Amino acid sequence: MKDLRQITVVGLGLLGGSVSLAIRRSFAHVQVVGFSHRETTRDKARELSVAGEIAGDLHAAVAGSDIVILATPVRTFEQQFRDMAPALKDGAIVTDVGSTKTLVHKWAAARLPGTAHYVGSHPIAGSEQRGVEFSRDDLFDQATCIITKTPRTNDQAAGVVEQFWQRIGCLTQTMTPQRHDRIFAAVSHVPHLVAAALVNATDPADLKQAGKGFIDTSRVASGPANIWTDIVTTNTRNVVAGIDRVIESLNTIKKAVGNDDDREIMALLERARSRRAELIEYKLSRKELD
Amino acid sequence: MKDLRQITVVGLGLLGGSVSLAIRRSFAHVQVVGFSHRETTRDKARELSVAGEIAGDLHAAVAGSDIVILATPVRTFEQQFRDMAPALKDGAIVTDVGSTKTLVHKWAAARLPGTAHYVGSHPIAGSEQRGVEFSRDDLFDQATCIITKTPRTNDQAAGVVEQFWQRIGCLTQTMTPQRHDRIFAAVSHVPHLVAAALVNATDPADLKQAGKGFIDTSRVASGPANIWTDIVTTNTRNVVAGIDRVIESLNTIKKAVGNDDDREIMALLERARSRRAELIEYKLSRKELD
Repeated sequence: MKDLRQITVVGLGLLGGSVSLAIRRSFAHVQVVGFSHRETTRDKARELSVAGEIAGDLHAAVAGSDIVILATPVRTFEQQFRDMAPALKDGAIVTDVGSTKTLVHKWAAARLPGTAHYVGSHPIAGSEQRGVEFSRDDLFDQATCIITKTPRTNDQAAGVVEQFWQRIGCLTQTMTPQRHDRIFAAVSHVPHLVAAALVNATDPADLKQAGKGFIDTSRVASGPANIWTDIVTTNTRNVVAGIDRVIESLNTIKKAVGNDDDREIMALLERARSRRAELIEYKLSRKELD
Repeated sequence: MKDLRQITVVGLGLLGGSVSLAIRRSFAHVQVVGFSHRETTRDKARELSVAGEIAGDLHAAVAGSDIVILATPVRTFEQQFRDMAPALKDGAIVTDVGSTKTLVHKWAAARLPGTAHYVGSHPIAGSEQRGVEFSRDDLFDQATCIITKTPRTNDQAAGVVEQFWQRIGCLTQTMTPQRHDRIFAAVSHVPHLVAAALVNATDPADLKQAGKGFIDTSRVASGPANIWTDIVTTNTRNVVAGIDRVIESLNTIKKAVGNDDDREIMALLERARSRRAELIEYKLSRKELD
């Protein structure tokens, strides 16, 4: 960590912009290079000084960098790896902020040179806002960042990535990409699709009567469709299995309602209530809720 | 409305207690009688002065009242109607605060004397808190209250009930109980079951990684299991049909994910996103959101 001299952030949306600002805040002597292929984004990023240097050429942007962080949509990563490969310096560490990890490890193994080290990262931060103009240097304060590694991951590089996220404010946790993708399908990707399915299943005319309950239950369905398409198409198997579990769980409740089986309905609702109560208690104990 | 002298509230939970307090606030010269079959509740209600008189005898509580408002769980209503029938004065108006309406109209027609007039009410207010100790005289300020009537409902009585809710702060809307139950299955009862199914489908160990998205999507699943069992078992047909629509909608998304059909996934997510954006815009235009 002491030897870090330059870090490149590829993609300057809310996450990329915020990572850049957080690095500037926490690593006073590190040069931050921000890359975007869009001129309008580069102009805004320059205005907001999110990085010391803003580049429109990927090779120039990653050349000489000790760490390269991808913050473009997940499905662009394979091509980004290919494109940056020739320009990475020996020993460069490549990581990312993507929401799925198994495929990314696979792409990195296939596309990056053997002299570079890929480590997966998934900082659990963000907001419904999009774009570099919403970047904040404190977006990662107290956020969890999952670090993913496989048996072929370079341990020293994983250590550097872990310290990097801790330094900009995250609490880190390390797991395999497979475990990451299974868990986040369950707690994030599938709930997103369930919220979308619920909205799509409701007559828009009826929605006028929706109250706070519906508004909350459906909130995540307001996320950007392209980002979520990216996420679910890079975690297909876990997402499909997760939807199947929810359908099974809905069928169990439907059967109990159809049979007018009060005891069973009550037991199912009580199970959900108490599990959620435990979740809230756990989150409160870790001060992860407001 | 000018002739109102006494109103009885049957059941002193959060809703019953709040209705009582709201009446005391808005109808200075009306005697409010609160009924609870539980002594501990009556004691608390007396301490908090939620009503001018607190009774433990239903006949004594409803005798002489111009309006009787049921605020016990929906499934107790049929028995309450039976029990209070002999003591209702001629021309008494009976209403309620229940979340489902079709069955209640049926029970009222069968169990109340012809000299009493039933009108359905569903004030959309409440909180996750329970018990008379959380009662507030402003719980209904700016809340929507749905008034339900059928062709056999007495129009004058419906008018009195409508004015009653308006006087304690509600915006009223009138519809048939059938329409009410269909709409609220879609925007409230089914979303509740979907949230519960989602929690039940998720491994409790994985829940530790749940973020704000999951917390919001599942929030309504923290509602009291007995109240929601009441609600869904008194709206069976609409609830079962609504679950079927959500399952169909989930299967459509699952198929698109399984086929890696980006365009279809994006179209489905974008449909949900834009419908919810319209909902939020509508709610904001009516100042129904904070």
